[in-house]
Amino acid sequence: MRRASHKPFTLSVKALVYDKKGRCLLLKRSNQARANPGKWEFPGGKLDPAESFDQALLREVREETGLTVSLRKVAGAAESELPETRVVYLIMEADVVSGEFKLSEEHTDFQWASSAQIRQTDLTGQFYEFIHSYQFPSR
Amino acid sequence: MRRASHKPFTLSVKALVYDKKGRCLLLKRSNQARANPGKWEFPGGKLDPAESFDQALLREVREETGLTVSLRKVAGAAESELPETRVVYLIMEADVVSGEFKLSEEHTDFQWASSAQIRQTDLTGQFYEFIHSYQFPSR
Repeated sequence: MRRASHKPFTLSVKALVYDKKGRCLLLKRSNQARANPGKWEFPGGKLDPAESFDQALLREVREETGLTVSLRKVAGAAESELPETRVVYLIMEADVVSGEFKLSEEHTDFQWASSAQIRQTDLTGQFYEFIHSYQFPSR
Repeated sequence: MRRASHKPFTLSVKALVYDKKGRCLLLKRSNQARANPGKWEFPGGKLDPAESFDQALLREVREETGLTVSLRKVAGAAESELPETRVVYLIMEADVVSGEFKLSEEHTDFQWASSAQIRQTDLTGQFYEFIHSYQFPSR
């Protein structure tokens, strides 16, 4: 693997959204998705131009789940290599504040999962390393 | 500690800059610095408006060290709480490409350190947890 690829980087922000029972929200990608069809992931996405990372994350979570969340703290980082770009993921812990859960068209299923369940879920590959070293919050 | 502080977040990007011998660059903050005087840190800083995280990091490293680097991959994330803001740090591994090393006025000393040396260095507190879980690249 080349270490100093000249592919541009893109920043994506992702949220581990926790409910009041301490379960974390996972979303299932559509079987028709171009990348990682049928795999599970966390809500979030890329920044719009001139958008700050926290604004982008609140917007993406709202678009993908209908939920308003507040950001708690940083959880970690991850990376994936696509044909044209390398995506760096900044992953934040978040808490549900309000809103009615509703899936967007991007996803076909969801689960509120315990840490043990998350580690057994078929996540998109870029989050494996992160999730296995991540210290889930104690309750 | 409040979990859902309403302080705004700020994104800062930091680089673990490696030389050809696999040593990593540390910079010592001035004894007159407002925050963390005399502590050691990694080059980097905040994004300018509308600047991407990778552009910001290349610029900050150049300003603080005179060096041109290429970004290798994501290393991790960290966070610190200041009176008015919470700073989230996205930390990337980088390699020196060219340039003549030169300290800026922000720093008073530097070292090219091994992983063992870094773990014994008086780093600014926000990087402790990161550096103790970070897997240094094997050579």
